[in-house]
Amino acid sequence: MSVTFRKLALVGIGLIGSSIALAARRQNLVETIAIATRRAETLAEARALDLGDIYTLDAAEAVRGADLVILCAPVGAYGALAEAIGPFLEPGAIVSDVGSVKEHVVKVVGPHVPEGVHFIPGHPIAGTEHSGPSAGFAELFAGRWCVLTPGADVPAAATARLVAFWQAMGSMVECMDAAHHDMVLAITSHIPHLIAYNIVGTVADLEADTKSEVIKFSASGFRDFTRIAASDPVMWRDVFLTNRDAVLEMLGRFNEDLSVLQRAVRTGDGPALEALFTRTRAIRRSIISAGQETAAPDFGRPHEAAPPATPLPVRDHGGGDDA
Amino acid sequence: MSVTFRKLALVGIGLIGSSIALAARRQNLVETIAIATRRAETLAEARALDLGDIYTLDAAEAVRGADLVILCAPVGAYGALAEAIGPFLEPGAIVSDVGSVKEHVVKVVGPHVPEGVHFIPGHPIAGTEHSGPSAGFAELFAGRWCVLTPGADVPAAATARLVAFWQAMGSMVECMDAAHHDMVLAITSHIPHLIAYNIVGTVADLEADTKSEVIKFSASGFRDFTRIAASDPVMWRDVFLTNRDAVLEMLGRFNEDLSVLQRAVRTGDGPALEALFTRTRAIRRSIISAGQETAAPDFGRPHEAAPPATPLPVRDHGGGDDA
Repeated sequence: MSVTFRKLALVGIGLIGSSIALAARRQNLVETIAIATRRAETLAEARALDLGDIYTLDAAEAVRGADLVILCAPVGAYGALAEAIGPFLEPGAIVSDVGSVKEHVVKVVGPHVPEGVHFIPGHPIAGTEHSGPSAGFAELFAGRWCVLTPGADVPAAATARLVAFWQAMGSMVECMDAAHHDMVLAITSHIPHLIAYNIVGTVADLEADTKSEVIKFSASGFRDFTRIAASDPVMWRDVFLTNRDAVLEMLGRFNEDLSVLQRAVRTGDGPALEALFTRTRAIRRSIISAGQETAAPDFGRPHEAAPPATPLPVRDHGGGDDA
Repeated sequence: MSVTFRKLALVGIGLIGSSIALAARRQNLVETIAIATRRAETLAEARALDLGDIYTLDAAEAVRGADLVILCAPVGAYGALAEAIGPFLEPGAIVSDVGSVKEHVVKVVGPHVPEGVHFIPGHPIAGTEHSGPSAGFAELFAGRWCVLTPGADVPAAATARLVAFWQAMGSMVECMDAAHHDMVLAITSHIPHLIAYNIVGTVADLEADTKSEVIKFSASGFRDFTRIAASDPVMWRDVFLTNRDAVLEMLGRFNEDLSVLQRAVRTGDGPALEALFTRTRAIRRSIISAGQETAAPDFGRPHEAAPPATPLPVRDHGGGDDA
């Protein structure tokens, strides 16, 4: 089974699309890369960065003759894009995407994929808070998970080929059901983003003098939320418009828990607070053991001279913290 | 005015206490360092790390003859500690602390500080998610803010001396009213921690199979919350027990905003979502301009090979994100 594709069409060329272009090129996974995007400025930027071989504002042109098509545009644009490219998809081609929700993608793209074309929705769980074609880098997917949600009618060989493609770019790949993906991502990603956007919004509404102090003292916790809340606004709008049910379900659980916690603060219930704050450490340790995070203090952010990288201790306290 | 103190007593020797010991020693700010802590194991650890000159389980012994006393224990222990050391404080000495709340500290420590001793509560806004004496490092305060909240009766010269001490350890120092400190920190630090603890708790309650997937896919946003929620549980219990009013006030605003956002998700109000998500980017840019954060993508976490450090672009999207 060859990992190599004759022609890769990237429809959309932001952080993820440009990283795929760079990684696929570096690993020699494709002969030709065609890049389509909606805006002439973005296309010019992609061309200036030398990300592909063919540049076009017409998605249909990009996918013609392609044996691998990956939608890398905001999910909200998928329906119209799928309708536009559907008639030009080549029999035997694989069509995939990189969107953060999957059931919705199945719903809006699926009907436009002709018989004989293999539709395998995908979601590389990788990224940074930066966006646009210049934000991409070939190592973005290294050591990161990519979830694929092939439908029951997709031949195993087609799925295996796409799995190999992502693995060659450094990803670990897992296949699962689209609905399950959406529920897991609602709590790992969508709710954290919603909450981060919310608290940054709360700060934005503070009185001007307090707000400037919040920025000054942001290293005490708030700062980490602002990175999350700096992600692409249109992409996130689409996530919440298209994964509504799973988001509302998980948000309901979050709100219930927050009410209990708020009550513990109001009534001064020290044991309840300490019990929760202790229990949550175990999750952190699991994430570090799973290789999904570094144990370097403060993410290894510079403190003038670098701090030593120590393992995460769980011990009796004797002092303060990043409060 | 001399920055040098004859004898520094550190009461409590966790992350902050040990970092003060290391930084003060490196900068030659003290002749003698006395370390007192409640537990023999912690004291033995401090001694093994060679953090000071005098080691004792008796806080009163540590502060005898000290011209600078810094409480570095959890805030919940301050009242009893202040009562124990009060009679042994030397006239002219400066008493300070590193607690995350300040009005409460004024209330519980103030009455035990004898006439002629200068009480200047303090809060270095620095830390990592690690705790204990071995977590400290001399560069922890470099480039970080330290807030001091001297009362009206403290001589300017005493405050200036403590300001110079923190500046010599690399801090930027700001003096403000204790109540104002508590309100600013409620939103920059206490609410972010409360929310992070809460969502990590929500995940801890998920069904076992979903939970393992949440850990696997945590890089999509959730991971950043777990770092915050890995901080010292006792310290954070004390924060919420002692800064209740400001925390409940800010939590009320957060909850109001979250209800509006939840409604926008439920009704599918795309323009409202996009408007909020766009507005919050400005706060992130202010924090980077203020030097409180690095613009390196993903905090410069390793992606096998290091990604390029690019400035934060705000541009039209063309693709996915860390979703």
